[in-house]
Amino acid sequence: MSSGGGDTGKSTVQTTSSSDSSSYDVLLSGGKYKTSPISGLTAADNSNQFNSRSFESGLMSLSKKQFSTNSYVFQEGQVLSASTVTNWLARKSKKNSSGLNPASNGSTDETKRAPMYFQQMLEEDYLTKQDGKYKLAGMSIGIAMNKVDYYQKKQYGATYKTTISTEQQKEQGQRIAQEVVKRLRANKQVGNIPIVVGLYSVAPEDTLVGGTYFQYAVSKSSSLGNWSTLGYKNQMLPTVNGENAINSSDSDAFTNFKDNIQDYFPNLSGVTAQAHYDGTNLKSMDVTINTQFDGLAQITSFTQFVQQSASKYLPSGADLDINIQTVDAQQAVVTRTNGKFNSHVYNAD
Amino acid sequence: MSSGGGDTGKSTVQTTSSSDSSSYDVLLSGGKYKTSPISGLTAADNSNQFNSRSFESGLMSLSKKQFSTNSYVFQEGQVLSASTVTNWLARKSKKNSSGLNPASNGSTDETKRAPMYFQQMLEEDYLTKQDGKYKLAGMSIGIAMNKVDYYQKKQYGATYKTTISTEQQKEQGQRIAQEVVKRLRANKQVGNIPIVVGLYSVAPEDTLVGGTYFQYAVSKSSSLGNWSTLGYKNQMLPTVNGENAINSSDSDAFTNFKDNIQDYFPNLSGVTAQAHYDGTNLKSMDVTINTQFDGLAQITSFTQFVQQSASKYLPSGADLDINIQTVDAQQAVVTRTNGKFNSHVYNAD
Repeated sequence: MSSGGGDTGKSTVQTTSSSDSSSYDVLLSGGKYKTSPISGLTAADNSNQFNSRSFESGLMSLSKKQFSTNSYVFQEGQVLSASTVTNWLARKSKKNSSGLNPASNGSTDETKRAPMYFQQMLEEDYLTKQDGKYKLAGMSIGIAMNKVDYYQKKQYGATYKTTISTEQQKEQGQRIAQEVVKRLRANKQVGNIPIVVGLYSVAPEDTLVGGTYFQYAVSKSSSLGNWSTLGYKNQMLPTVNGENAINSSDSDAFTNFKDNIQDYFPNLSGVTAQAHYDGTNLKSMDVTINTQFDGLAQITSFTQFVQQSASKYLPSGADLDINIQTVDAQQAVVTRTNGKFNSHVYNAD
Repeated sequence: MSSGGGDTGKSTVQTTSSSDSSSYDVLLSGGKYKTSPISGLTAADNSNQFNSRSFESGLMSLSKKQFSTNSYVFQEGQVLSASTVTNWLARKSKKNSSGLNPASNGSTDETKRAPMYFQQMLEEDYLTKQDGKYKLAGMSIGIAMNKVDYYQKKQYGATYKTTISTEQQKEQGQRIAQEVVKRLRANKQVGNIPIVVGLYSVAPEDTLVGGTYFQYAVSKSSSLGNWSTLGYKNQMLPTVNGENAINSSDSDAFTNFKDNIQDYFPNLSGVTAQAHYDGTNLKSMDVTINTQFDGLAQITSFTQFVQQSASKYLPSGADLDINIQTVDAQQAVVTRTNGKFNSHVYNAD
């Protein structure tokens, strides 16, 4: 842990040091980790648990292109307040002129109503040390856009849904981003620092994967800058609902891996993966293996065998995160990061 | 994975290869992992979940002193059958002359009855390749001895307990071990191979740690060989019920570690450890940290901080296994093995 100089009104400022130069050090302002007040605020319901992590991690990945991990330290967003963002996420109305979702048009019909486009917002702050003090020097904003808007016609009633086209998602997302940046620029704390804005497509409830960022822009001063399109996609393997594989050679490789381990260890209740793509290029794979056994010797052997099979069958360029679990508990984990395997069996002594 | 020659009646014999020379390769006989038929058989009730893992891992550690991981491959015990061991674990009676627990003396009084000493049994097989075939070349037997015997006076009735002294545990354990080895020697599959026998003291239900092996012997031919005493002890940290620390400097170190992380991250619901000792010498520590937060940025920062704090405060010689979890799920893990740290955050992409 490195000690920094005190910032205004704080007696101690420290950072957690990442052991890995591709990760940010994190500011512990006043000796405490500070959470963002807008964390977890949402406009509508969506029970897909995979969204929240990728909404966070995706924005941090985009930020690294702009804010070097060597020069900037990270802090969860401290500028936007919960009340401000609650108003922004709501519909525009007489009472709420700052609402960024469209005013209601009176209809509750699935295809005629004005849906809630804007689902969630994320602020990440990036600071640099200036004259011995950490100062806000960059900001990233995640704007989560619904692909499906879930709603009730009356309180506690049945759930209906309005589907939003990719075109609408993009158009509305860009409109909201522009307005958010304009409002942030009016805030003295923000001033003229670079702001990265990412548009995130929220995965619907019934998909088994998380959403992805589809566009981003960097605002260097008052205007927003050009939008860059991102080709990120997630896919569940084996594919479900007759979906075509994004890359059939990856899909085949996973099937071979799955068949091989199920052949040697028949007592498995499930082997699935969430594959993360950039275009048709596999970046990483999160594999979940559910076992019906939990004896130490068997889990240890199985973990060895999974690593061998992964090395033999799974695409060599992709990072891997393989979780081995029973219904009750995590049993072991095998990872491959930049080609290097690591494995760990829980409570092995 | 290395392919071996076929053994009798099997078309394929393979082993999982350990990536680590201090672990055994595991035999996949007939292309499948084989579990031991006696796994999980117990004489009396004991709900302490920490026993089962350490009963297994402790016997494997003892085995490594006798059967080198370079020369032997491991297989779960295949010699003893479930029906045989069920009889051995039961009381001796007219119907069950092979019972190794004492015959009932008719009393159900906690201090007057004959308790169930012998709680559980474990067989581990060690094989070597001879003339292209894997053959049984060594065996390890774990004998789990109760420290507290839990019993009911009538079916579904209240639970009573008989406490067993350390002296009785040792005396009865040695008697049972001698008889088990004698019976194994009469089995043609076993013949004259070396047999490691470990006596394990089962931790009572209300302790928060697992049991330990307290004695072991190696039988090289018909007789049992001398008993060696083991100094293994487990202790929960912070200590509970006014217990004295096995080693107060370790206990203080853990308290400093705990205070440091709770100071920077106040939203923790628990920081505890299971410390594993040989005498007063700390071998390893399993730390469990329960957090009330699960946001990716916070978990990632916290994991970095835990690693720094562990490196700074926890005794440098001990292996570490630090699990970071919420009520719902495993969030991250930090390990230190032979001085080398490794950390992993779950579902970080």
